[in-house]
Amino acid sequence: MIKIIMHGCNGHMGQVISEIVKNDESSTIVAGIDLNTERKNDYPVFQSFSECDIDADVIIDFASAKATDSLLDFCLQKSIPVVLCTTGLSNQQIERIEKESKKVAILKSANMSLGINTLLKLLQDAAKVFVPAGYDVEIIEKHHNQKIDAPSGTALALADSINEVFDNEYVYKYDRTLEREKRDKKEIGMSVVRGGTIVGEHEVIFAGTDEVIEIKHTAYSKAVFGKGAVEAAKFLAGKAPGLYNMSDVIK
Amino acid sequence: MIKIIMHGCNGHMGQVISEIVKNDESSTIVAGIDLNTERKNDYPVFQSFSECDIDADVIIDFASAKATDSLLDFCLQKSIPVVLCTTGLSNQQIERIEKESKKVAILKSANMSLGINTLLKLLQDAAKVFVPAGYDVEIIEKHHNQKIDAPSGTALALADSINEVFDNEYVYKYDRTLEREKRDKKEIGMSVVRGGTIVGEHEVIFAGTDEVIEIKHTAYSKAVFGKGAVEAAKFLAGKAPGLYNMSDVIK
Amino acid sequence: MIKIIMHGCNGHMGQVISEIVKNDESSTIVAGIDLNTERKNDYPVFQSFSECDIDADVIIDFASAKATDSLLDFCLQKSIPVVLCTTGLSNQQIERIEKESKKVAILKSANMSLGINTLLKLLQDAAKVFVPAGYDVEIIEKHHNQKIDAPSGTALALADSINEVFDNEYVYKYDRTLEREKRDKKEIGMSVVRGGTIVGEHEVIFAGTDEVIEIKHTAYSKAVFGKGAVEAAKFLAGKAPGLYNMSDVIK
Amino acid sequence: MIKIIMHGCNGHMGQVISEIVKNDESSTIVAGIDLNTERKNDYPVFQSFSECDIDADVIIDFASAKATDSLLDFCLQKSIPVVLCTTGLSNQQIERIEKESKKVAILKSANMSLGINTLLKLLQDAAKVFVPAGYDVEIIEKHHNQKIDAPSGTALALADSINEVFDNEYVYKYDRTLEREKRDKKEIGMSVVRGGTIVGEHEVIFAGTDEVIEIKHTAYSKAVFGKGAVEAAKFLAGKAPGLYNMSDVIK
Repeated sequence: MIKIIMHGCNGHMGQVISEIVKNDESSTIVAGIDLNTERKNDYPVFQSFSECDIDADVIIDFASAKATDSLLDFCLQKSIPVVLCTTGLSNQQIERIEKESKKVAILKSANMSLGINTLLKLLQDAAKVFVPAGYDVEIIEKHHNQKIDAPSGTALALADSINEVFDNEYVYKYDRTLEREKRDKKEIGMSVVRGGTIVGEHEVIFAGTDEVIEIKHTAYSKAVFGKGAVEAAKFLAGKAPGLYNMSDVIK
Repeated sequence: MIKIIMHGCNGHMGQVISEIVKNDESSTIVAGIDLNTERKNDYPVFQSFSECDIDADVIIDFASAKATDSLLDFCLQKSIPVVLCTTGLSNQQIERIEKESKKVAILKSANMSLGINTLLKLLQDAAKVFVPAGYDVEIIEKHHNQKIDAPSGTALALADSINEVFDNEYVYKYDRTLEREKRDKKEIGMSVVRGGTIVGEHEVIFAGTDEVIEIKHTAYSKAVFGKGAVEAAKFLAGKAPGLYNMSDVIK
Repeated sequence: MIKIIMHGCNGHMGQVISEIVKNDESSTIVAGIDLNTERKNDYPVFQSFSECDIDADVIIDFASAKATDSLLDFCLQKSIPVVLCTTGLSNQQIERIEKESKKVAILKSANMSLGINTLLKLLQDAAKVFVPAGYDVEIIEKHHNQKIDAPSGTALALADSINEVFDNEYVYKYDRTLEREKRDKKEIGMSVVRGGTIVGEHEVIFAGTDEVIEIKHTAYSKAVFGKGAVEAAKFLAGKAPGLYNMSDVIK
Repeated sequence: MIKIIMHGCNGHMGQVISEIVKNDESSTIVAGIDLNTERKNDYPVFQSFSECDIDADVIIDFASAKATDSLLDFCLQKSIPVVLCTTGLSNQQIERIEKESKKVAILKSANMSLGINTLLKLLQDAAKVFVPAGYDVEIIEKHHNQKIDAPSGTALALADSINEVFDNEYVYKYDRTLEREKRDKKEIGMSVVRGGTIVGEHEVIFAGTDEVIEIKHTAYSKAVFGKGAVEAAKFLAGKAPGLYNMSDVIK
């Protein structure tokens, strides 16, 4: 039975993961960390890591970037691996994560779903055929109207995955309405749609001569990300120090 | 048998329309006007209207904005109605068209397809239900990588059609990557995709709480626009002076 | 404050509606009816209508067809309008509903979402243009892998809505793999997809010459249907006897 | 300069390929074979192979299954490789092709487009991840209303490609309206849409828990298949005997 500490347990994703683990036979949440300790859970909740004296095999983090440093302190001190799902980290924090991963196992991913992480690999194979054959690459992402960042971290990860194959020669184009010019071959177009409560939709388009290939991922609920995080936690428990990502989990 | 003069007969759309009329039993092209007079057609081709002494019931225009003034001169002088499909007109030209339409029948439309022109009406009905219920409106258009203007005139026409219902209160949002802010309720998002040889795809999205409605139009060839132009020409022949559009043809 | 009796309160939709009403300021659930009375709710739960002595303005029904007759008995006896969302009714039950609706207000609908009910109207307008112009109509519906009926009641309602415009001349075609023949003009094709946990997706396609129009509805959660049912209940409370449907609510 | 004999040169695909080769600098059509010899081409046309005395590097075949045997006779006699694109072959013909391919190079493919042939490979990789994780596989194909076979050969090839990974354990399900039962895990659903002039659309869906992946291919014109056939011909000229397919060309 894998013992998990849930960082950000009373946020939306923390609760989604609590529900998933409750119905999972091979993992259990032994403690939660959250500024808000009012909500009742099946496990004890502490306001900060400094108050938490419970041992665990792995931490799942869906909190805020402000809390990432105290999280890392705790992981290092106790030698507990961490699945780090918080986004919006500073460059300084990203550098620290890379450094600390030499001492403790850290898994970091822009998107925790099995689908997206599989597509990251498939897209590279598709790009290797279509891009040299002259097909244009365009990405459309759709999210709910409360999301403040654009494009989504996942859309950028999809673009980066393709760009990596071509020595990062491609630039991302966000707005085509500013000039009257033909599309540059060395662009990846990125379109952003915001509306309603759309959980997350990502579509990569390879457009050639009289032929279009579309590869699309739709998330219907945040449980998709929660499930991926729990899978990652089970994978990471007991692992040697290092920087891991979801493609290690899928493989 | 409706007699047509084809303005811009040796351009791509001019040839598409020539082919359609050749297979149509109730219309015929009696003359073409084109700067390039080399290509062989079944009808005589003149380099300018001033050289053309052939009578007709209607003109179809798919030329360039530079030639629109001499076109209007000819229509007025001969009292021949015109289906005006050229885009990129100056404000001055648009004003002149409105003025001259008091003397001769002019039909002008951003998109000649039956599908798009039907959607322009349906979208208003959809918007009247969904927008007051809090649904967000987003539009995505896709075209080939040689198109230089963005968004497409058709995408703007679709947005305008919805906006008209709400006293033009909505602003069009072309790029969401410049700031970190939630979507404003009074926006219509416009996304532009360019790739390969895509003829034209337009999608209007109404996104509400846990529910999304998508209304999408795909053109597979330019024949769609040609067919609409020929239908419009047959409709317009013999009509009284006035400014018409495709919705008059469909009705 | 509209007082609601929730029939089938401890089923999935009954709980979804309980949650919606809890957060609604103008309605409240005063009693539930369910064979299973174990689950705790904020309101009293009775095993059958015969045990329920609580007064209400309207009943919402998301139970099973087996319980529909006792539901109708109760509505008639107490003169309480009912929003009837149970599917799979027998022809006998449908006839009884029509008969009883002369004495009490009954609202019955294959799909409670605002989106689908709006599309039912829009599709008729679209069909009036596209079908006479020779466009073929095809419908695709997608649902989760636990759904046992096919096609969905909603897909049939969409097809019926179009067919109604043309004196029900069209037949529904479910399988094209049985013969080697061209499509008959007087068909509406119906395709059924089942997979994963898809909540419900319906797409109507009008396919013409080089032009396709797609009108698509996606439900992301059952809350969409719950919200529609609550709106319908508020509309129906106090209404005169008669057979109503969701299009009366939207109007 | 690769010298091509075009078998079925005056059919629709024969003409599409003639046009492509006319604009190609590294290949040329030296002769055509067609029952109908009336149409004028830039090359001599013979009514049958027995009349043709012109030498070539490769044959492209887009004729009818009736002519396949005389085609094979000619290829063997002259030792000319053949790109065999005719569909609807009998089992006997398929066996003969396998046998003769030991003596002459034969390339055979259900679909000549770069896109589809790339997807055949990608889908296997996707299926290896998603199917063991419990995702359901469904395929939708859309074609014009004149197509008489269903499902398309391409849709079957896509399904076979996935099925091959799992020892052909999956059965193809064409109609779900005949019984009231849950989806069987060991099925691949196949939906067929027919309408208008749709050139060809194929979509493979992997549907899991709250997550759907769609991989879609759209052909906008038959030129896509012609281009693939010409690429295949250039690849096959001079090759050793053997049975090849488009994945050898792409590699």
